[in-house]
Amino acid sequence: MIVVTTIEELKRTIRQYRREASEGRIGLVPTMGYLHEGHASLMRRARTECGYAVLSIFVNPLQFGPNEDYDQYPRDAKRDIELAEKNGIDLIFMPSVQEMYPSKPLTSVLVNQVTERLCGASRPGHFDGVGTVVSKLFHLVQPDRAYFGMKDAQQVAVIQRMVYDLNIPVEIVPCDTVREADGLAMSSRNVYLSPEARAQAVVLSQALASAEQWVKEPGITAQQLGERIRQAIAKAPLADIDYAEILEYPDLTVPPADADLSRYPNKLIVALAVKFGKTRLIDNRLLDSMEV
Amino acid sequence: MIVVTTIEELKRTIRQYRREASEGRIGLVPTMGYLHEGHASLMRRARTECGYAVLSIFVNPLQFGPNEDYDQYPRDAKRDIELAEKNGIDLIFMPSVQEMYPSKPLTSVLVNQVTERLCGASRPGHFDGVGTVVSKLFHLVQPDRAYFGMKDAQQVAVIQRMVYDLNIPVEIVPCDTVREADGLAMSSRNVYLSPEARAQAVVLSQALASAEQWVKEPGITAQQLGERIRQAIAKAPLADIDYAEILEYPDLTVPPADADLSRYPNKLIVALAVKFGKTRLIDNRLLDSMEV
Repeated sequence: MIVVTTIEELKRTIRQYRREASEGRIGLVPTMGYLHEGHASLMRRARTECGYAVLSIFVNPLQFGPNEDYDQYPRDAKRDIELAEKNGIDLIFMPSVQEMYPSKPLTSVLVNQVTERLCGASRPGHFDGVGTVVSKLFHLVQPDRAYFGMKDAQQVAVIQRMVYDLNIPVEIVPCDTVREADGLAMSSRNVYLSPEARAQAVVLSQALASAEQWVKEPGITAQQLGERIRQAIAKAPLADIDYAEILEYPDLTVPPADADLSRYPNKLIVALAVKFGKTRLIDNRLLDSMEV
Repeated sequence: MIVVTTIEELKRTIRQYRREASEGRIGLVPTMGYLHEGHASLMRRARTECGYAVLSIFVNPLQFGPNEDYDQYPRDAKRDIELAEKNGIDLIFMPSVQEMYPSKPLTSVLVNQVTERLCGASRPGHFDGVGTVVSKLFHLVQPDRAYFGMKDAQQVAVIQRMVYDLNIPVEIVPCDTVREADGLAMSSRNVYLSPEARAQAVVLSQALASAEQWVKEPGITAQQLGERIRQAIAKAPLADIDYAEILEYPDLTVPPADADLSRYPNKLIVALAVKFGKTRLIDNRLLDSMEV
């Protein structure tokens, strides 16, 4: 496994692989590091499907708001490198901020509509930063496939739309969310939960599992379903709901207020963002057996 | 020479060239058609420098404002194809609007700062449309080099900045403006000039040539130089000045008001947009022997 920190080394290494294996497929797993089993599942899938598996580790300042946790975002390069090696990664790209943004970028890649709600609404500018950095990584690595976890379902929708609209030659592979034994979605931010909050955080996945049942009740509307979900989450005294929304996926538009969700023709997603103290967790569930 | 209209045929043809000539270079000349000698010079340069020369012809609705000349923009596919063949093009991509935008694109590529003045100011949204379509063409053709005329100097600056910020793997080659015998910069829109306006339109290039002399006068400021240029253009009775600006290039920022331009350390551009009736002409000149 090779670890590179500069764009020049990255390009040279990729070029060499392309020269040696002209039919080989390159897979990219873009991450912000502090890797967990969720990332590991993406790496293993890239390993299985591609001749060359690339992992990028970059905590992208552009996608953090001024009052968010960029400085506190957890980092552990040594452990990340070990985990990448164990999961079959061929090349790690871990650039500095200076390397990725030698000067203030004047260009941004904006995706409208799918960014209007959920994290797009509660984290203004977040997806502009995501679109810009992912587009940079795609241009630098030029992967055939890129792997993203469905825990960040809106991010997957945004990136799929960007790739479609701009004809970026990469196939986006959405991968199932990996969960702890009790159902909590794996996240680098979970380490910041107090033991009490950690125990209560299970309400997110529990509420989503209940939602899957509730939505089968004839006549149920989005407001009714949302209300039940919020009540389920509120049973955790430390939970502070940022949003709990039912939307169409992947367009992330609002279903009509009077629609009977149990007979709704389009794919739906229940998406949650809940704060426990300063730690904001997200989770979601696609209702119906949808393909993403 | 091959002419394709669909993205699928384009990709198949490019893929085949890449397979057959793995070391070959692909050159792209993106145009809106109605080709003239300016375009021909770009095509010949692509032909000389690259193993495979691709011409795109697409009048991009996204870069026209609601009151602009999208519907009236001149088109002549038959003549364009002949001219391309004569100038050594291997592949023409001329898609329909439906092919490029099968649905309303939600993604846009925005470049700040360099788009604030000149045509960015007088044609709001114009460069968002340019950035988006050029980024699509770059992803579809994946050229090693792309050729642009310096008549559209701001467009060159915008695209160079986009490529730099997003790490798009293409080299932008700016090419000298090609002029009629009397100095008028070649443009597809020149056909719309009345004989009288056509005769008067020479004031643009004349004013730019004078500006090159005037800027050598010790102590001259941007305001003084701008005033002289505007007076020179005003001698043409049909000329209606949209803008006449002196800016730094390629950042397109304003030099300090009291700066002595004759001793100015940075590269400067004089950029003009002048209407003759409904026809809007642009032209520019880089002062100093700058590299772009």
